[in-house]
Amino acid sequence: MNSVVFHIDTDDSVRLSKAFFSAKNLLEAYKDDGIQIVFIANGDGVKLFTKDRENSLKDEMVNLHKKGVKFMVSQNALRETHTALDNVLEFVKIVPSGIVEMVNLSKAGYQYIKA
Amino acid sequence: MNSVVFHIDTDDSVRLSKAFFSAKNLLEAYKDDGIQIVFIANGDGVKLFTKDRENSLKDEMVNLHKKGVKFMVSQNALRETHTALDNVLEFVKIVPSGIVEMVNLSKAGYQYIKA
Amino acid sequence: MNSVVFHIDTDDSVRLSKAFFSAKNLLEAYKDDGIQIVFIANGDGVKLFTKDRENSLKDEMVNLHKKGVKFMVSQNALRETHTALDNVLEFVKIVPSGIVEMVNLSKAGYQYIKA
Repeated sequence: MNSVVFHIDTDDSVRLSKAFFSAKNLLEAYKDDGIQIVFIANGDGVKLFTKDRENSLKDEMVNLHKKGVKFMVSQNALRETHTALDNVLEFVKIVPSGIVEMVNLSKAGYQYIKA
Repeated sequence: MNSVVFHIDTDDSVRLSKAFFSAKNLLEAYKDDGIQIVFIANGDGVKLFTKDRENSLKDEMVNLHKKGVKFMVSQNALRETHTALDNVLEFVKIVPSGIVEMVNLSKAGYQYIKA
Repeated sequence: MNSVVFHIDTDDSVRLSKAFFSAKNLLEAYKDDGIQIVFIANGDGVKLFTKDRENSLKDEMVNLHKKGVKFMVSQNALRETHTALDNVLEFVKIVPSGIVEMVNLSKAGYQYIKA
């Protein structure tokens, strides 16, 4: 099984949108074999996965989520950036630590890509 | 065999030039063992591998290419950034998707470095 | 043994400080299993590991160093950025090439994270 983890740590919606484009290309290329894609936000990146962001970004995330892409935010980073838990989009999983999740996924064979 | 893939996704020639410096250091360090180095541009990074860029950058690329370094650009990204195919430097390989190439090279044992 | 290498290549103390936060989270999460963390600076990142930087940054580094985190700078990058060897903080190891060290650590099983 192919698997990729995208690391997003800046509050930069253009950069994230380009990573979404990459994810769509991966889904298309591996549509027969299957691929597991996870986006993990830490640092200021967590702000991108909140309800008060631009609708176009949320729409892209919803579409990817429907295709099986997973989204995670770091609770440590939410705390550091004073981002309320209930502001996080419903389908985003809140993990205790984004970096720990990334290291664990990498150990499990996920390919790391820095967005 | 040692192998490294450099990921470049911003139109930033200073950043690319620093990655070229890293590539030169790798070639020097592994001159006896051998090393395969690939640069893959996607996103706005594809603009750096075009004919209309600064000559100093092109000269560096030609020198690295002569030493066996490979350059690839994502056709998906060329389309997204409205970059003409015939503007891509002759020795740069156009691949259907940069991200798919990166994931495939990583699976083949290439070490990922984000430029 | 878990092991992570952080790659820092910009002179951006905010970015480095966020990577330190990640390192602290890793140390906490793996306090029972143990984890080896290495920061490698190349490019303009080497300036962050010098004596003339802000005390808050140096204090954070000293604290992480006491917990077993290792710091390395690239001698090639020190030369390129005209940074004096004796300006590098005492506990930072000067390696001939940062990128070569990163590739070697990755081959040894270290998980690469771009700061």
